[in-house]
Amino acid sequence: MMQDDNWFSERYYYKSVINGYKVKKVLHEEKSQWQEIAVYETQAVGKLLTLDGKTMVSDLDEFVYHETMAHISSMTHPDPKKVLIIGGGDGGLVREFVKYPSLEEIQLVEIDERVIEVSKEFFPNCTSGLSDSRVKIVPTDGIKYIGEFENYFDIIIIDSTDPEEFAEGLFTKEFYSTVNKALTKDGIMMAQTENPFFDEYNIGDIYKNLKASFKNVQAVHAPMSIYPGVYWTFAFCSKGINGIALNSERIPFMSDLQKSLEWYNMDWHKAAFVLPNFTKRKLGLE
Amino acid sequence: MMQDDNWFSERYYYKSVINGYKVKKVLHEEKSQWQEIAVYETQAVGKLLTLDGKTMVSDLDEFVYHETMAHISSMTHPDPKKVLIIGGGDGGLVREFVKYPSLEEIQLVEIDERVIEVSKEFFPNCTSGLSDSRVKIVPTDGIKYIGEFENYFDIIIIDSTDPEEFAEGLFTKEFYSTVNKALTKDGIMMAQTENPFFDEYNIGDIYKNLKASFKNVQAVHAPMSIYPGVYWTFAFCSKGINGIALNSERIPFMSDLQKSLEWYNMDWHKAAFVLPNFTKRKLGLE
Repeated sequence: MMQDDNWFSERYYYKSVINGYKVKKVLHEEKSQWQEIAVYETQAVGKLLTLDGKTMVSDLDEFVYHETMAHISSMTHPDPKKVLIIGGGDGGLVREFVKYPSLEEIQLVEIDERVIEVSKEFFPNCTSGLSDSRVKIVPTDGIKYIGEFENYFDIIIIDSTDPEEFAEGLFTKEFYSTVNKALTKDGIMMAQTENPFFDEYNIGDIYKNLKASFKNVQAVHAPMSIYPGVYWTFAFCSKGINGIALNSERIPFMSDLQKSLEWYNMDWHKAAFVLPNFTKRKLGLE
Repeated sequence: MMQDDNWFSERYYYKSVINGYKVKKVLHEEKSQWQEIAVYETQAVGKLLTLDGKTMVSDLDEFVYHETMAHISSMTHPDPKKVLIIGGGDGGLVREFVKYPSLEEIQLVEIDERVIEVSKEFFPNCTSGLSDSRVKIVPTDGIKYIGEFENYFDIIIIDSTDPEEFAEGLFTKEFYSTVNKALTKDGIMMAQTENPFFDEYNIGDIYKNLKASFKNVQAVHAPMSIYPGVYWTFAFCSKGINGIALNSERIPFMSDLQKSLEWYNMDWHKAAFVLPNFTKRKLGLE
């Protein structure tokens, strides 16, 4: 995976941009049934997990991604009990969801069990929630698994890699429509939806697919320092619930919790939905 | 400047991170009195201007930087007449300011005239405002120049490179205090203040210096795809004016103008001031 001595680097946007990190130590490298998994100790971002040569999680900024999707969805749903996370084997999303005592069930559907095991070893801060008794780890294909549910989950999070190979199916109209069916009437889906500047996967089409399946499609933006292009978008989809409307009953709880969070606060929650012209136009959300 | 055949790359954060762009053609390279100036035609970001091997302006995203500082300052000042830009030889900020018919004087103090000439040749879209009769180009050292003014400018923009070499003086307490003196009572200063994740220049100290000189110090965040770390901060400083409070008299004007802008809109203006916990803590703006 390392193209040069002591550097991990990733090429993106049709291989025309390169981003690399100086590596102090290769902590782990393996080829699982599904992908190449590596962990590097870097100078700039601390420990860095990569899958098939793509940056996934780092000590530097994992909290941005995980707090954004877990707390925006939990703070808008009126009364979430059941959560499903597809992907997310690093455990970071679970760690945030277990902070809500009102949740009863958190299912983590990760196709590659090795990602969970490697994360437990090198990112114990991320995986700390996996031992919570409400958490169920399901090592299977999320696309097939979700088809078994109807009107069941309150929150579904798609924590996927890029729309390529086995993750490509997680960005289709058919999949989104299966997700919609698996959600309860107040259900919320959030998903990572790539960078709009280096637009290799046509973000406009991703949002067209979302709009074909969900009544309400909004987006939030947040920076993921280790991802290609950094400026990241996340879809917020529901059968009607507005992502900007915080659940007022949960505000006292979050007023306290947000003091200990590294990224999320309720003012930022609302601001993250306000898009600049460029992003609105690229996503077709004008 | 090109480390490999057909790639421009920049190392940052103590040279532990690398970011590179595939180059289709080297359009220009020279060593001016002040710095190395280069323009590349790249695959990912279009034309790219670099100074001393650092990315400055690209076709892909120049509008983010220029619209952010020009419109946030112009839309909060009650009645700006005189603007000073320090740096900014690419002309992008001037292009945005000349859109306000009420401005009477726009001074561009660029130490390196060659940056202006090279920009005119390769970034005519950025330099289009320089021919406006209200624009005065002053080819001198901004630090010395600004010391000649007292209670004169309504808006001052610091469009500088990183706090290194001849730009280092643009981040000191002494300089900010000179800027404050040159501003009128409703005056606003905006300045680029680097990335808080790869914090090579100690962003906390920059904001301490700002707070030592200005009564009101706020910050906005926006992504600059070609800058190290992308997630960028900009200081908004004043003698009291709140950056979130839009000037209501100018709202009808902007309602019309923002349709043609690529990044800025008034809702985003207000949202850009709402910082996540990480950024507030790094900047000391809690």
